[in-house]
Amino acid sequence: MTAVDPRRAAWAYLSQVVQGPCAPLNELVEAVGIEEAARAVRERDLPPVLQRRTEARRHIDTSTRDLELVARRGGRLVTPDDAEWPAWRMLGFAGIDVTRDKDGAAPLALWVLGEGSVTELTERAVAVVGTRAASSYGSTVTAEIVGELATQGFAIVSGGAFGIDGAAHRAALAVGGVSIAVLACGIERAYPTSHEKLLHTVASTGLVVSEYGPGVTPAKYKFLARNRLVAALSDAVLVVEAGWRSGARNTVKWGRRLGRPTLAVPGSVHSVASTGCHQMIRDGEARLVTRASEVIDEAGPLRLPVSGVEDGGRASDALVGDQLLVYEALPARGSRGPRELSEASGVPIDGVRGVLPLLELSGLIGSDETGWFRVRKRNR
Amino acid sequence: MTAVDPRRAAWAYLSQVVQGPCAPLNELVEAVGIEEAARAVRERDLPPVLQRRTEARRHIDTSTRDLELVARRGGRLVTPDDAEWPAWRMLGFAGIDVTRDKDGAAPLALWVLGEGSVTELTERAVAVVGTRAASSYGSTVTAEIVGELATQGFAIVSGGAFGIDGAAHRAALAVGGVSIAVLACGIERAYPTSHEKLLHTVASTGLVVSEYGPGVTPAKYKFLARNRLVAALSDAVLVVEAGWRSGARNTVKWGRRLGRPTLAVPGSVHSVASTGCHQMIRDGEARLVTRASEVIDEAGPLRLPVSGVEDGGRASDALVGDQLLVYEALPARGSRGPRELSEASGVPIDGVRGVLPLLELSGLIGSDETGWFRVRKRNR
Repeated sequence: MTAVDPRRAAWAYLSQVVQGPCAPLNELVEAVGIEEAARAVRERDLPPVLQRRTEARRHIDTSTRDLELVARRGGRLVTPDDAEWPAWRMLGFAGIDVTRDKDGAAPLALWVLGEGSVTELTERAVAVVGTRAASSYGSTVTAEIVGELATQGFAIVSGGAFGIDGAAHRAALAVGGVSIAVLACGIERAYPTSHEKLLHTVASTGLVVSEYGPGVTPAKYKFLARNRLVAALSDAVLVVEAGWRSGARNTVKWGRRLGRPTLAVPGSVHSVASTGCHQMIRDGEARLVTRASEVIDEAGPLRLPVSGVEDGGRASDALVGDQLLVYEALPARGSRGPRELSEASGVPIDGVRGVLPLLELSGLIGSDETGWFRVRKRNR
Repeated sequence: MTAVDPRRAAWAYLSQVVQGPCAPLNELVEAVGIEEAARAVRERDLPPVLQRRTEARRHIDTSTRDLELVARRGGRLVTPDDAEWPAWRMLGFAGIDVTRDKDGAAPLALWVLGEGSVTELTERAVAVVGTRAASSYGSTVTAEIVGELATQGFAIVSGGAFGIDGAAHRAALAVGGVSIAVLACGIERAYPTSHEKLLHTVASTGLVVSEYGPGVTPAKYKFLARNRLVAALSDAVLVVEAGWRSGARNTVKWGRRLGRPTLAVPGSVHSVASTGCHQMIRDGEARLVTRASEVIDEAGPLRLPVSGVEDGGRASDALVGDQLLVYEALPARGSRGPRELSEASGVPIDGVRGVLPLLELSGLIGSDETGWFRVRKRNR
């Protein structure tokens, strides 16, 4: 039994206390650091909202046992302290108003099985999700599209469930691709149990990820919170089949909030497994796609600005939507603050706040005490 | 052999001279009247553009023979002189710039088989079109949707072709509904020939319509011009199946230019007969629909203003798009001209000109020498 790093123990402890998204705790950690936050929770030295949220489990600290248990399974706890923490994948949460969407917060930390770096394996990733009651059409189309996406180097992110999720994981594995399963329970347990072997294979070649610590059992609200991580870890969300009230529509909702392109495959109007896809396309919540190349067309732009700076083209040409509006609202010389950018671009202030860090990561813009400004290319 | 009315003979003569859409001739007829226009064409007393357009056939006058031939078949020539002329169905053409879309003109006149009034039978109408190479899925979905639409009192307008068109006509007939076939050749000939019996049945319960006079044979460009009339005579354009380069996409194009809702049915991504539908949905050219009730939701609004004045609700609540923008731009008291309305509403001047007559027909607005004004309801 090795000594556990006290910082890591603090992350593990708080992860098990809140079990799921908790914006006020994220803020506290950001403000005072993880160890001080853990002390404050332990001693109930907290604002009322966090007192309520931590009351039930703050007296339970299984951090040492949890970290050792996960280590024995070949896993680890990945936190914002770690190089592999997928920081830029979490930027979209900055634009979500948690007073309206209380689960719209970045995860505190992620429990992970699998050898690869979370950041590296999700560098190019597409979420492929759908109904548990997949039709043979849905399974076939999943296999075709995922096979091509995985061959082209996209990691396939899904929820490990029956139906479309399982078909997506299997199709990625079948072509030697990377698959990432995001669970709504502890990573040491297989859910559904009959997917134990599948999830083991996913972990051995890709990742099994959860924000829930060891021992946490699945529950309806955890699946919904899990769906936001499926969207966050991906460049686009693709629904192959979804019934009228499918959880996949919830994943699409998160995809839209996080600024991810959301896509759906059409099917027969006689198939109940396609009704959710058709409704989302009708309502403009998802764009119709029929094949992998159309998915790649959509999944591309989010990443292009990040890599575009190095190549010959103008990286800003790759910007779309709010990114483009905000970038264009920046003056050629001088800087602007988020409020001015919101007024100039017509993008709501929350949207501006969500887009700015991504543009900064892409190297297109920078910030200083005067505000945000366009970065000039030295080699041009 | 009865004497032919000289006005009617003039319409028939000019219809055979131009054979298809001819905006300059429409303008001449509007300016000087049909008989004077016919004299001017005969004597080549014309602006250059009309000289070119009428040169080939201006010396041929088969009007008496054509009118008699059509009469013997139980048909007639319907012109703007007639009460049954579907004037308000042609209003959308006012918004089309014929210097860019040279075929975007109302037909000069319509050759018609069938007893019903063109205006009355097209009062509620949906165009249902698609590929000649329909799949069994497409034929089944056509039968289901058309069966419901026709039962609900919508006339089904189509092109009389093989595949989806034929399935649409048959499905309307099967439930005792009204079907309207718009041909790209003279109404005395059946095209395709194996649809002779079908077209005969369509004419005996609905209408067979063409802007081409007796003896005119089909040609590619005539099918394209015909498609604009399929759209014009309908409240919405529905494509059930369309291949990549289907003529149905051309009908959708006309539907969009004429301000009709354009709709498409999804299908399997493996079906080539659905590729055109999927592409139109992807590109925002058509909205996805899966059943008749969704079609009716879309086909409704165009008509509501026209009938809404009589019932209890505020008719202007039914206005959408440019209609609403233009109506709202009218002052509560006093009147405005089209140019002022364009500036106030943001709708281009051509769009304003296209919308005003429809609003007037609906009884919501009126016009006098000072411009256009809102009509106040006496009984409110």
